[in-house]
Amino acid sequence: VDIARLGELGFIAALRRRAGRAGGAWLESIGDDAALLRPRRGRDLVVTADALVEGVHFRWSTTAAHALGRKALLANLSDLGAMGARPLGCLLVLALPREARPAQLAGFVGGLLAQARASACPLVGGDTVESALWCISITALGEVARGRALRRAGGRPGDRLLVSGVLGASGLGLRILEQGGARDPGERRFVRAHQLPVLPRGLGVALARRRLATAAIDLSDGLARDLAHLCAESGVGADVELERLPLAPGFERACRARGLDPQQLALSGGEDYQLLFAVGPGAPPVAQLARQLGVRLSEIGRLRQGRAIRWLRAGRRVTPGRARGFEHFKAGPEGAE
Amino acid sequence: VDIARLGELGFIAALRRRAGRAGGAWLESIGDDAALLRPRRGRDLVVTADALVEGVHFRWSTTAAHALGRKALLANLSDLGAMGARPLGCLLVLALPREARPAQLAGFVGGLLAQARASACPLVGGDTVESALWCISITALGEVARGRALRRAGGRPGDRLLVSGVLGASGLGLRILEQGGARDPGERRFVRAHQLPVLPRGLGVALARRRLATAAIDLSDGLARDLAHLCAESGVGADVELERLPLAPGFERACRARGLDPQQLALSGGEDYQLLFAVGPGAPPVAQLARQLGVRLSEIGRLRQGRAIRWLRAGRRVTPGRARGFEHFKAGPEGAE
Repeated sequence: VDIARLGELGFIAALRRRAGRAGGAWLESIGDDAALLRPRRGRDLVVTADALVEGVHFRWSTTAAHALGRKALLANLSDLGAMGARPLGCLLVLALPREARPAQLAGFVGGLLAQARASACPLVGGDTVESALWCISITALGEVARGRALRRAGGRPGDRLLVSGVLGASGLGLRILEQGGARDPGERRFVRAHQLPVLPRGLGVALARRRLATAAIDLSDGLARDLAHLCAESGVGADVELERLPLAPGFERACRARGLDPQQLALSGGEDYQLLFAVGPGAPPVAQLARQLGVRLSEIGRLRQGRAIRWLRAGRRVTPGRARGFEHFKAGPEGAE
Repeated sequence: VDIARLGELGFIAALRRRAGRAGGAWLESIGDDAALLRPRRGRDLVVTADALVEGVHFRWSTTAAHALGRKALLANLSDLGAMGARPLGCLLVLALPREARPAQLAGFVGGLLAQARASACPLVGGDTVESALWCISITALGEVARGRALRRAGGRPGDRLLVSGVLGASGLGLRILEQGGARDPGERRFVRAHQLPVLPRGLGVALARRRLATAAIDLSDGLARDLAHLCAESGVGADVELERLPLAPGFERACRARGLDPQQLALSGGEDYQLLFAVGPGAPPVAQLARQLGVRLSEIGRLRQGRAIRWLRAGRRVTPGRARGFEHFKAGPEGAE
């Protein structure tokens, strides 16, 4: 895919052919001034947008184009899931240099469309423009049964706090990449977890459908920061038991081999794309819930009155060092990318 | 607004305070994993996304930040209008450098929010990330009565072809900026038309409500190119009478003073943000339509069978030189920006 040869219009025409008609609730997808959707009755709609910028979120020297295309959409799918929504479709705003390598562009588009198909989230529109660097922005729409969306607000004191999957694996993978790449198969697993996160598929939708969660947020900036968001919106504090944070097998050893603090990474690694959610006192036990939903779930603490987030080890309060999570414009030594 | 001092989260919090709750059909706007919308019954939804990139769409040396913020949203509002849709809300993906000048950021946000309020298109979400250059991407949503959306497809041979406003004024303003800026009040008008286009407010919605148009497209890449899109989607050709193209007072003189071809600019200037649409044989006369809708409308030709777009002067076919319109990645001497 040579953008300088195809031009904007040739590229859009090729994208339209490859993406095909979106169908379903979409009356019009690529090819008009805008995409046109007929919402189903009894559904609320969810809309989210995310960006990936070359040199900030990814570097071509350490990035496979196909995985980047998939990951660009996964960030949005994670947001939809955190609202309990099923994907409807996505729009791609792609800013890229005229000199973009054809293999990179083809790989990126291929990855994006593959993920779109796999997640039933067809590409329905967007914009393609020239830029000195790659800037990828995706908007995704989803639907959720009326009134059932998962919100950040809604958590109450006493609610159990659960997290899906493992924490910090993506953050470790990024550090390994930054330090020159994987040295063994164990490290490669973490690099993969960074390059192509595995989302807890269907978890958010199941929680919403069964009204199991009182509040939810996806983990994109690290547990410490995302928990703070959930608590702030819910107007509660939390107790988190550090020894209950779910870590991947070999995670702590791999961290130490690289001189990294595993707890630090688990709390602030970023891009985990797991779901953090609260369940009320009446919810089934975690093991039963995990079995029902077909995902790994860990109970890591409880919401409490007040505003403080307390980190506990062996029941005693501790202060984890600088567990801030990633923040754009303020990235310090532990800032992701 | 100092992004390096505020950080991503401080900026988002400030934006949330300034934007306020979206209300209306929005159950949730800024502050959750995604925005949450309850569609009204009997409405179709329209979604569109557009990007503005520093160094390609605008240069800070010739750009007022407040106008840029307004214009960024206007491009989307123009797309919504071309579908016959009323705005519902927008999402802003803002990639910008840590060193962004506080006055530029404040001006941009102020302009965007002012336009959002003026157009009843509240900011409901988005993403803010770091980048080596400004890359602004906005997604807008709108609603239109079920089945009434204006499409590019739908034009039939014999339909009259109408355009709102004037052509080429924005393109001329850009050339004046590129040549060092306005030299007199007459030129300043065209620069303003480029920096802050005036949309045919309410026109698309009125056309859709009254089922007056068989096809429509907004003029963003220049009449020549956008007419080609409308014709391709409708499967028709067109006859356009060049002497009927609507030009602003003083446009031709101003073009000649700069050594520019007025017809060329009218056909391919870009960023007119006017509406090009077709009406069936039974539609009211243009003058009556214009009065009813409260906008300037000009009949410039007709759709015809076949695929060819024929440019006529005094009834005879002519070939306008390189009337291509702007295309990213292929910008030649007449390419906009």
